[in-house]
Amino acid sequence: MTVSEIRMRVWRVGRRSDSEYLLTLRDDWGSPLIMVIGPCEAVAIWSALRNDPAAERIRVPAAHDLIQGMLERLGGKLEKVVVDDLWNGVYYAKLHLAVDGERLTIDGRPSDAVALALRVRAPLYVTEEVMAASREHDSPPDPQEGDEGPLEGLEDV
Amino acid sequence: MTVSEIRMRVWRVGRRSDSEYLLTLRDDWGSPLIMVIGPCEAVAIWSALRNDPAAERIRVPAAHDLIQGMLERLGGKLEKVVVDDLWNGVYYAKLHLAVDGERLTIDGRPSDAVALALRVRAPLYVTEEVMAASREHDSPPDPQEGDEGPLEGLEDV
Repeated sequence: MTVSEIRMRVWRVGRRSDSEYLLTLRDDWGSPLIMVIGPCEAVAIWSALRNDPAAERIRVPAAHDLIQGMLERLGGKLEKVVVDDLWNGVYYAKLHLAVDGERLTIDGRPSDAVALALRVRAPLYVTEEVMAASREHDSPPDPQEGDEGPLEGLEDV
Repeated sequence: MTVSEIRMRVWRVGRRSDSEYLLTLRDDWGSPLIMVIGPCEAVAIWSALRNDPAAERIRVPAAHDLIQGMLERLGGKLEKVVVDDLWNGVYYAKLHLAVDGERLTIDGRPSDAVALALRVRAPLYVTEEVMAASREHDSPPDPQEGDEGPLEGLEDV
């Protein structure tokens, strides 16, 4: 972690409409970072948050479980996820990997990155610049009704 | 490829209901293998079939694009996908990878495996046993209306 990165935790996933969900991260002081994500990614994050050993999910890995399995089988480790850009209202993240002592980064959507980070218990960060920009950005309101948050068991994530 | 594996190609993705889509593979003689898949995987396969350079998809990789990027960055290659089991009406696949001269397999859903195979142009197979079992299995009818298939540009997949 560098000085300009703020540690975040998943706070909740709320439904905004049939096609839009809101992923809320929070820093240690409760400041939120709210991102619009799609329904597929919302389900992927949900299933990780619930840590639900649903029979089907165990029997056949879903897309993000497949990413996790591939990462492990190829000897890679997800060290952290950093939401490091906000452009035209869209957030961007980097997955920081370590493989064979080498470090590399892969671009990804924050939603996919968070879905993977929850599975492998990798920490989440946002750069101070993006956190500051998010306050200027017309973020959607943090949903208080109709969602399931705040969720339990997230302290160690 | 072993003797018991039959080369398949993606024939179409059709909609069955809001939550169920049908993925149809065909062998060289037109025999179909029809599998029920979810809407997220249907979109992932669709976006690969269309090879649609949608701005958003280029800017921010979706889950299966992330798998592709991770595979490439970690030095792995998807050699083939084999649908090799049918159990209680659910199909199972293995992703055959090569990395550093070593071969390994990862379990996955056929839908995720196909979505990835289309992106990296890896061949698809089904075992003769599963193909035979699929004929006994109460497969859904191949949709003729309301879908977009047969799709163009699939001959080389």
